[in-house]
Amino acid sequence: MVRDSGACVSVALDAMGADLGPEVAIKGADLVLSGAVPCKHKVHLSIYGKESAVLPVLGKYKLVEKNSVFIDTPDAVLCDDRPSFALRHRRKSSMWCAIEDVKKGVVASAVSAGNTGALMAISRYLLGTLQGIDRPAIATVLPSRKGSFVALDLGANAECAPGLLFQFAIMGRAFARAVLGVEHPKVGLLNIGAEDTKGTYNIQEAFALMRDAKQDINFYGYVEAKEAFDGVADVVVADGFSGNIMLKTCEAVAGLTLHILKKEICSSLMGRAAMRILRSCYFKRTSGSALDVRSYNGAVLLGLNGIVVKSHGSADATAFAHAIKEAVCVISQGDMAKEMISEVSNG
Amino acid sequence: MVRDSGACVSVALDAMGADLGPEVAIKGADLVLSGAVPCKHKVHLSIYGKESAVLPVLGKYKLVEKNSVFIDTPDAVLCDDRPSFALRHRRKSSMWCAIEDVKKGVVASAVSAGNTGALMAISRYLLGTLQGIDRPAIATVLPSRKGSFVALDLGANAECAPGLLFQFAIMGRAFARAVLGVEHPKVGLLNIGAEDTKGTYNIQEAFALMRDAKQDINFYGYVEAKEAFDGVADVVVADGFSGNIMLKTCEAVAGLTLHILKKEICSSLMGRAAMRILRSCYFKRTSGSALDVRSYNGAVLLGLNGIVVKSHGSADATAFAHAIKEAVCVISQGDMAKEMISEVSNG
Repeated sequence: MVRDSGACVSVALDAMGADLGPEVAIKGADLVLSGAVPCKHKVHLSIYGKESAVLPVLGKYKLVEKNSVFIDTPDAVLCDDRPSFALRHRRKSSMWCAIEDVKKGVVASAVSAGNTGALMAISRYLLGTLQGIDRPAIATVLPSRKGSFVALDLGANAECAPGLLFQFAIMGRAFARAVLGVEHPKVGLLNIGAEDTKGTYNIQEAFALMRDAKQDINFYGYVEAKEAFDGVADVVVADGFSGNIMLKTCEAVAGLTLHILKKEICSSLMGRAAMRILRSCYFKRTSGSALDVRSYNGAVLLGLNGIVVKSHGSADATAFAHAIKEAVCVISQGDMAKEMISEVSNG
Repeated sequence: MVRDSGACVSVALDAMGADLGPEVAIKGADLVLSGAVPCKHKVHLSIYGKESAVLPVLGKYKLVEKNSVFIDTPDAVLCDDRPSFALRHRRKSSMWCAIEDVKKGVVASAVSAGNTGALMAISRYLLGTLQGIDRPAIATVLPSRKGSFVALDLGANAECAPGLLFQFAIMGRAFARAVLGVEHPKVGLLNIGAEDTKGTYNIQEAFALMRDAKQDINFYGYVEAKEAFDGVADVVVADGFSGNIMLKTCEAVAGLTLHILKKEICSSLMGRAAMRILRSCYFKRTSGSALDVRSYNGAVLLGLNGIVVKSHGSADATAFAHAIKEAVCVISQGDMAKEMISEVSNG
């Protein structure tokens, strides 16, 4: 893995992946470069996409044009491409070329809003997994009552053997150190109760592995979904199926709650008056709010020989900027991968 | 199953299960009897508990005292009793006696806020499952952008074979007809994507069973957690593990969203002014709000020869009243069980 020397880090942007088109990535880059979405480090960008689609947009964002190189890629991964199809037939796509440049060390990381399955397959194929890691996992940061926590896997592996869940614990700890800045992250295992008879066979076996680990993984034990959002652990390990259900339910219910709240408040005269005040002083500036789901955009494919960040397909520019920020944050913690390898091999 | 003739339905209350003590059930009953939490039918109650704990409370609620019989039970199931222990050693508990009276036909249903595992085990043991149903499931109603939907299983069966998930679809449909009043409920299967390569083996096999069913189950296909809360289906079928994760995440994130919102609004002077108005006109009367999680209290143990409703252990009186209301609603749909049996046997 490349670690940028000095304060400038290089990020590859797949400009073709977002549902809303190439402007998402480029305007997102502009928000980062201009400081509207603040980043720890100076960023230099490599932008991958079809010339005809990207160059006209790039012309509108002078700051991005000045601080980037553009790489014309004739093909793009489509949202309904199967991973196996993308692996065989999309080798000239923006996604492929961006990840290939991570492998070559041309850039330190890649960010894409494209097809998750294809991104995972191409990343695994080109970068390979870290020594001792069987399969990569998707990880992100979610909000809790105490701040935030790292959750993984969020959908890369629907079914997980106990040993894989154990690897996720180690990967999640290294990731939490990097992005949350917690030195000794507490690791919880997602379950449907605290009693040791609860949950599936795989979860119960993973519990035993974590409890008896030679490595000190600071194991908290089982956490229920409610406790995860209370903030009892810094890392919540799950199989990709239940992790994905937790993530998607979280996003859906946060939106639904605000939707119902606004509707109910506006059903009375007094409520509408209060809402008018809130619109001027609060809802206008949600971009800084902990409730702005866009600020949680950017899931990292952990366990690879290189850094790849997945943005939501439906991301807007602000959300995409947060995915870039996430990539920069992980790059600047250059020893995350080394840490994972050393902890896994200590087992 | 007993169906009450006339408009008065009889409900057994386990007064010993709630974390906050017997007053929860009794005050909850008072809210129903007084009409504060409105019910479709007149209710007569049988209250089960330890005399020393219940009678002093009962004396404070004259309306409940007048419309109930009290059954002194010397024992109670504890929250950390294992199901197998409760089955063997809690045969004189309030929970056991309440369910036994459902079996005998003395009451039409039982409501308990006690230990879920014990409640499920005792209910299964005493009532048995409906013909053609292998295992009961826990079902409840959750809010969506279009109103509400039925979700099951919420934790009774952590691992589910495809055939069991299919039975849940049929049970969920009958339940949705009863509690949502939808004549032809759409059934969705919870998954982590819409593509047919997504999800676990069991989910993919269950998909095939539902798609190819002889019965018309009005199968919508896969739903992601986000779509479930958008309201694309009336019934969302899941294994008990992911269903529980969805339920607990929903409850946690609804609370977390309001928590963050209030904190952020109150961080500015204008926001505090708006909040003062909202407190007087909105947050005061949350008992009627779609955001009041208490109104979703009451999960039904489906697939049994009798109606048993589980209240949250942490329920307050208002929440418990909603669990009673749920029981009454299901009782008044006396043919739900018959419907399940006939549809399962048609397969």
